[in-house]
Amino acid sequence: MLDEHSSTPLYKQLKEDLLSQINAGSLRRGERVPTEMELSDHYGVSRVTVRKALTELVEEGHLTRRQGKGTYVCNPKIGENIMENLSFTSVCQRNGVVPGAKLISVAIRPAGEEDVRELGVASDSRILYLHRLRYADGVPVVLEENFFTERFCPLIKEDLEHESIYALLTSRFGITRLRPSKSIEIARANEWEASQLGVKKRTPVLLVRELMFEEPDIPVHRTRQIVLGDRFKYEIR
Amino acid sequence: MLDEHSSTPLYKQLKEDLLSQINAGSLRRGERVPTEMELSDHYGVSRVTVRKALTELVEEGHLTRRQGKGTYVCNPKIGENIMENLSFTSVCQRNGVVPGAKLISVAIRPAGEEDVRELGVASDSRILYLHRLRYADGVPVVLEENFFTERFCPLIKEDLEHESIYALLTSRFGITRLRPSKSIEIARANEWEASQLGVKKRTPVLLVRELMFEEPDIPVHRTRQIVLGDRFKYEIR
Repeated sequence: MLDEHSSTPLYKQLKEDLLSQINAGSLRRGERVPTEMELSDHYGVSRVTVRKALTELVEEGHLTRRQGKGTYVCNPKIGENIMENLSFTSVCQRNGVVPGAKLISVAIRPAGEEDVRELGVASDSRILYLHRLRYADGVPVVLEENFFTERFCPLIKEDLEHESIYALLTSRFGITRLRPSKSIEIARANEWEASQLGVKKRTPVLLVRELMFEEPDIPVHRTRQIVLGDRFKYEIR
Repeated sequence: MLDEHSSTPLYKQLKEDLLSQINAGSLRRGERVPTEMELSDHYGVSRVTVRKALTELVEEGHLTRRQGKGTYVCNPKIGENIMENLSFTSVCQRNGVVPGAKLISVAIRPAGEEDVRELGVASDSRILYLHRLRYADGVPVVLEENFFTERFCPLIKEDLEHESIYALLTSRFGITRLRPSKSIEIARANEWEASQLGVKKRTPVLLVRELMFEEPDIPVHRTRQIVLGDRFKYEIR
């Protein structure tokens, strides 16, 4: 238990104790932690002390508060090594989580201003637009828009919800290797993105933009991903 | 001016008009935009319409609200190409902004738990700890902690505020090339970090951790950076 006579403040002792329980697995990843009142009773400290310990653990990314539900132990983040350029499915498998996808919409549309600028397509050309929600262990984590150049419009006839698009690019177009150009920045989820991802509006997210080229320099598609930052991190190894 | 009879909602027309002014430079990067009341008078639309347009421009990262100061046009983000492994100074120069640094503290300390784990140093060894605030065009943008292995402790006698550490590593230790291992994730600034960076507590930031090796595999230092996400983005090209 905590030591009132220690030079370490009680809230820090409590924080260390909770952290060691998380690391030992007695407070389980993804599960709710006891309420402030329960912790205050159990440790014999004030609720102010409990709140201070919990707040720091939230700020340091060990715990997360869910609106109206309580405080939960964070799942470890899914790490994606950017250097490997793996599919979402492979990244999930490497991290021991089950990948999933839901098709929100698929359409053939006129190229927009950004398609013309980024993909270098003609302004009167068409693009294949694909909008999907990506899941990890059944929970939405990434909202993904893909914009393919006109050549790939025939893919609209395929089962884009269940089949791997990269497998289709290989079998239908002979494309085996894509070279990416990427950017990663912070953004905030707008109302619609937030509702799809099950988070509050204006939640900070990672905005990842990709431009994929077939060798030597032929644009294939661009991608815009809204990624939940409490579930994902990027690595360069 | 705006067209009341158009099928495009007034707030969208206003948004487009403001965006084209930003792109044309008549609303200048880094400067304040007119107040809601001024915009409402100028365009002859309601303040509700103005607020809706401004809110979307903020959410999309074109404008930023500063507490008690008003709404400003965002500076373009500084892009760092991760593949190049350049110093902060070089990254700033490439982006046309003036780099700066302030030394917050430098100390020789016993290795901590994370130093032992990440750098593989003995738990009774010492590390050189260096804490700096990095500036772009005179504004703080990155808060950086460096932890060097014991071998580099003599650097404490150098002018670490003004000299390039990489230049010192070369001249004093013959180290010309470092191989990084990095991770990039979202975090929130704690109270102290926020005060140093001049932002509100809990502002979403990019947390960048680096581990730098001398070839073939000798750890030199680890770094922990708190990066303002409205000023920085990462690129992989």
